[in-house]
Amino acid sequence: MRLEDWLNKGIPDISKSLMKVHKHHFPIEQSLGFEGQEKIIKILKNFRKVLYPCFCDTYKDELRVETNVGNLLRSTALDLKSIIAKVLENSGEGRPEAKAEEIVIDLLNKLPEIREILQTDIQAAYNGDPAALSLEEILFSYPSITAITIHRIAHELYEAGVPIIPRIMSEHAHSLTGIDIHPGAKIGEYFFIDHGTGVVIGETSTIGKNVKIYQGVTIGAKSFPLDEHGNPIKGIKRHPDIGDNVIIYAGATILGGDTKIGHDSIIGGNIWLTQSVPPYSRIYNSQPLPQIKQKKE
Amino acid sequence: MRLEDWLNKGIPDISKSLMKVHKHHFPIEQSLGFEGQEKIIKILKNFRKVLYPCFCDTYKDELRVETNVGNLLRSTALDLKSIIAKVLENSGEGRPEAKAEEIVIDLLNKLPEIREILQTDIQAAYNGDPAALSLEEILFSYPSITAITIHRIAHELYEAGVPIIPRIMSEHAHSLTGIDIHPGAKIGEYFFIDHGTGVVIGETSTIGKNVKIYQGVTIGAKSFPLDEHGNPIKGIKRHPDIGDNVIIYAGATILGGDTKIGHDSIIGGNIWLTQSVPPYSRIYNSQPLPQIKQKKE
Amino acid sequence: MRLEDWLNKGIPDISKSLMKVHKHHFPIEQSLGFEGQEKIIKILKNFRKVLYPCFCDTYKDELRVETNVGNLLRSTALDLKSIIAKVLENSGEGRPEAKAEEIVIDLLNKLPEIREILQTDIQAAYNGDPAALSLEEILFSYPSITAITIHRIAHELYEAGVPIIPRIMSEHAHSLTGIDIHPGAKIGEYFFIDHGTGVVIGETSTIGKNVKIYQGVTIGAKSFPLDEHGNPIKGIKRHPDIGDNVIIYAGATILGGDTKIGHDSIIGGNIWLTQSVPPYSRIYNSQPLPQIKQKKE
Repeated sequence: MRLEDWLNKGIPDISKSLMKVHKHHFPIEQSLGFEGQEKIIKILKNFRKVLYPCFCDTYKDELRVETNVGNLLRSTALDLKSIIAKVLENSGEGRPEAKAEEIVIDLLNKLPEIREILQTDIQAAYNGDPAALSLEEILFSYPSITAITIHRIAHELYEAGVPIIPRIMSEHAHSLTGIDIHPGAKIGEYFFIDHGTGVVIGETSTIGKNVKIYQGVTIGAKSFPLDEHGNPIKGIKRHPDIGDNVIIYAGATILGGDTKIGHDSIIGGNIWLTQSVPPYSRIYNSQPLPQIKQKKE
Repeated sequence: MRLEDWLNKGIPDISKSLMKVHKHHFPIEQSLGFEGQEKIIKILKNFRKVLYPCFCDTYKDELRVETNVGNLLRSTALDLKSIIAKVLENSGEGRPEAKAEEIVIDLLNKLPEIREILQTDIQAAYNGDPAALSLEEILFSYPSITAITIHRIAHELYEAGVPIIPRIMSEHAHSLTGIDIHPGAKIGEYFFIDHGTGVVIGETSTIGKNVKIYQGVTIGAKSFPLDEHGNPIKGIKRHPDIGDNVIIYAGATILGGDTKIGHDSIIGGNIWLTQSVPPYSRIYNSQPLPQIKQKKE
Repeated sequence: MRLEDWLNKGIPDISKSLMKVHKHHFPIEQSLGFEGQEKIIKILKNFRKVLYPCFCDTYKDELRVETNVGNLLRSTALDLKSIIAKVLENSGEGRPEAKAEEIVIDLLNKLPEIREILQTDIQAAYNGDPAALSLEEILFSYPSITAITIHRIAHELYEAGVPIIPRIMSEHAHSLTGIDIHPGAKIGEYFFIDHGTGVVIGETSTIGKNVKIYQGVTIGAKSFPLDEHGNPIKGIKRHPDIGDNVIIYAGATILGGDTKIGHDSIIGGNIWLTQSVPPYSRIYNSQPLPQIKQKKE
C-alpha cells in the first residue's frame, strides 16, 4: 500500500520538523498539553457535583451522599494542587508545591460561602425569567449558572495569582455557554445572564449586586495604550464598572476603564456607550424607526 | 504531606456545610443531578441515530440496520420513560409511571411524522444556502439541523406537560449550536437557521412554514408584567408570531406578544421591531450611512 | 409492564417507517453517519496533539515525545485516508483510494508549514490582547487558536476537493468556539479573532495578513442570484475581500462579493457595510448618541 510505505519513510522527518517549530516557541517539557486542559475540565465537573450534590445512581441515602461529596472533594483537591504546582513551577515561582497547597486550602475553605453566593445567582435567574418554573430547571438548564459557577471558582484562583488555569476554566465555560467572562472580573451576588450567547465581560470589569444582563452584551475595552514597541501594556484598568441593580438589554456595548454605570440604571438593547451615566439612568436608542414598505401582492 | 493531613481534618466539615446549603434549597433525594442531565443527552444522541440511520461499523446490511434502529429505539424509550417518571413523581403528579409510559408511546408514534418534517427542514437548508452541496453535508454539518431535531422532540415533551426535561434538551442544543429555542415555541415545516450563533426564540413564539432566520436574531419578550410581589407572572403570551415565508436577516430583534409579522415579509439585518407589520412587508433600516474617513498614508 | 409489551408490538413498524423516510432521501449504505462525524472529530484532536506536542503523562523525554508524535501522525493519516476514500467513492470519484492517499500525503507534507503559520496566529493573539500573559495561555484558552487550527487543516482538504469532511471539521470548530469559518475562506498569516462568539466568515471570502476581528463580525453574502428554478446558484464569489492590517470591531457586518476593504483600514463596531472602501479608511457610525433620562430616585 502506497500510503503506508510513504508514511514509513516520511513520518520521521515530518515529526522532527513539527517538533522543531513547536519547541522553538514552547518549552514542551513544561507544557500542560491538551491532557492538562482535560484534567482542568474534569476538576470543574467534579466541583459542580460537589456544589450541587444529588442522590444519584448508587448513593441512595444522605450519609452516603455526604461521604461521596467528601471523597470527590478530596480527590479534586489533590488533582488541583498537582496542576497548580506545575504551572507555578513553570512560571518560576519558588516553593510551588507549598504555594499550591495553600491556594487549594484557601479555595476549599471558601467553597461553602461560594455555594451560598451561587444560590443567590440561581434565585436571580428564577426571579428574572418568566419561563423558569423551578430552581432545579435553572440549575440544570440555564447557561448562566454553568458560567457563573465556573467563574466564581476561576476568579478565586485568579486572585491567588495562579497563571493559565483560571483562563482555561473560563474558556471552557465560554465553549459550553457562549458566555465569555474573564476570570479577573469582580461580580456581585444575585447575578443573572439570560440566554447569554455572545456575552463578553472583560478582565478589569466590576459588576455590582443584582445585575441582569442579556445575550450579546459586551462589557469591554475601548482601546488600550501601547508601549514603546507598539505592544499593548498589560495590567491596566480597561473595562467598565457596573453599579448595583443595573439591567443591560441584549446587544448593548459598554466600553472603557473610566466608564461607570450608576446603580439602578437600565441600558436599552443595542446601545453603544463609552461614557459614564448617573444612577437611575434610562438609556434609550434614539435611532430612527425602521422603514416599512409593502411589496405588491 | 500538609494538604493530605489538612484534607483528613477539614473535608468532613466542608462537605457538611456544602450539603446543608444545597439541601436547604434543593430536595437532593429528588434531584436529577448531572447524571440525569447526561442521561438526557444520551437519549438525544440515540434519537439522532434512530432518525438518521446509516450502515455504520458492524451494520452492513439493511436488515441489520433496521434491527439496530429497533433495538436502539427500544432502549431509548425505556430510558426516557424512567427519567420522565422520576420528574413527574418529583413534581407531585399521581401515577407517574403510567403517565410516563403514555407520553413515551405518544412520542414514538409521532416519530415517523417528525422525521418527515425534519426532512423539510433539511431541504430548506439546501434550498437556502448556496454553500450547501449535498443533503448529507447538511445533515452532518449544519447547526440548524442539530437544533431543530432536538427542538421537535423537546417540543412534544413540553406539550405533554413534562417538566425540566424539555429545557435540558433545548439547552443541550444551545450549548452545541449557539441556537437557543425554548421547547415551547411552535415552529412550522421547512424551517432554516443559517449559521445560527446567538439566535433566541422565546417560549410563546409561533413561527409559520418556510421561515428562514440568520445568526443573532432574537424573537423575544418586550417586558413582562409583575405580580404583587414584583416577580414576573409565568405563562403569559410574551413572544411574537411570525407568518409563513418570512425571512429575518442577521441581528434583527423582534419583541412582544402582540407583535405579528405578516406572511411573506422580509426583515432586514439589525432591525429592532416591537410592532406588527402587514403581509409582504419589507423592513429596512433607515440608519445613516457610515462615515468614511481616510487616514493620511 | 405496559410499555414493554407495546414496544414489542410497535417497534418493528416504527423502525420500518423511519427507515423508509430516511432511505428515500439518503443512501444509507453510503452515509458517514454520526460515527463518521465522531471519527473526523477524533482526527482533529489528534492533529492538535501533533501540532502542539507536550511532555504529557508517560512521555517524559524528548525522543519519546517525537516517537509519540510520529505514531499519532501515522494512525491519524490512515484514519483520514480511509474516511476521505469513503466520501470520494460516495460522490462517484474514480480511484477513490489512490486519490485519498495523494491528498493525505500532500496534507502531511504541508503540516510543518501550517504549523509555522499557526505560530504567527498565536503571536497575533499575544500582540493583540492586553489580557494575554503567555503564549501557552493563548494556545490552551483562546478560541481563535482552536478555530484557526481547524480551519487551516480543513481549508487544505477543501482546496483538494474533498467533499463534506471539511465542513464537518469547520462546524466542529463552530460548535466549540462560536466562530463559523467556512473551509473555503482564504486567510492570511497573523490572523486573530478576539472572543469570537458569533463570527461568520463566508466561503468565498479572502482575508489578508495581520487582520484582527472581534466577536459578532459577519463577513457574508449580500444576496445571491437564483437559477431558473428559484434555487441559489452554487459556486459564485459572494463574500468580501479584506486587505492586510485591517481591524474589524465587534458586531460589524461586511457583505457582498464585490466589497473590498482596503489595507490598513479600521471598521468600527456595529458598522453595516456593503460597499468597498479604500486603503487606510476609518469607518465610524454616525448614529445619534443614545438618549439619557434619569428616573426620579
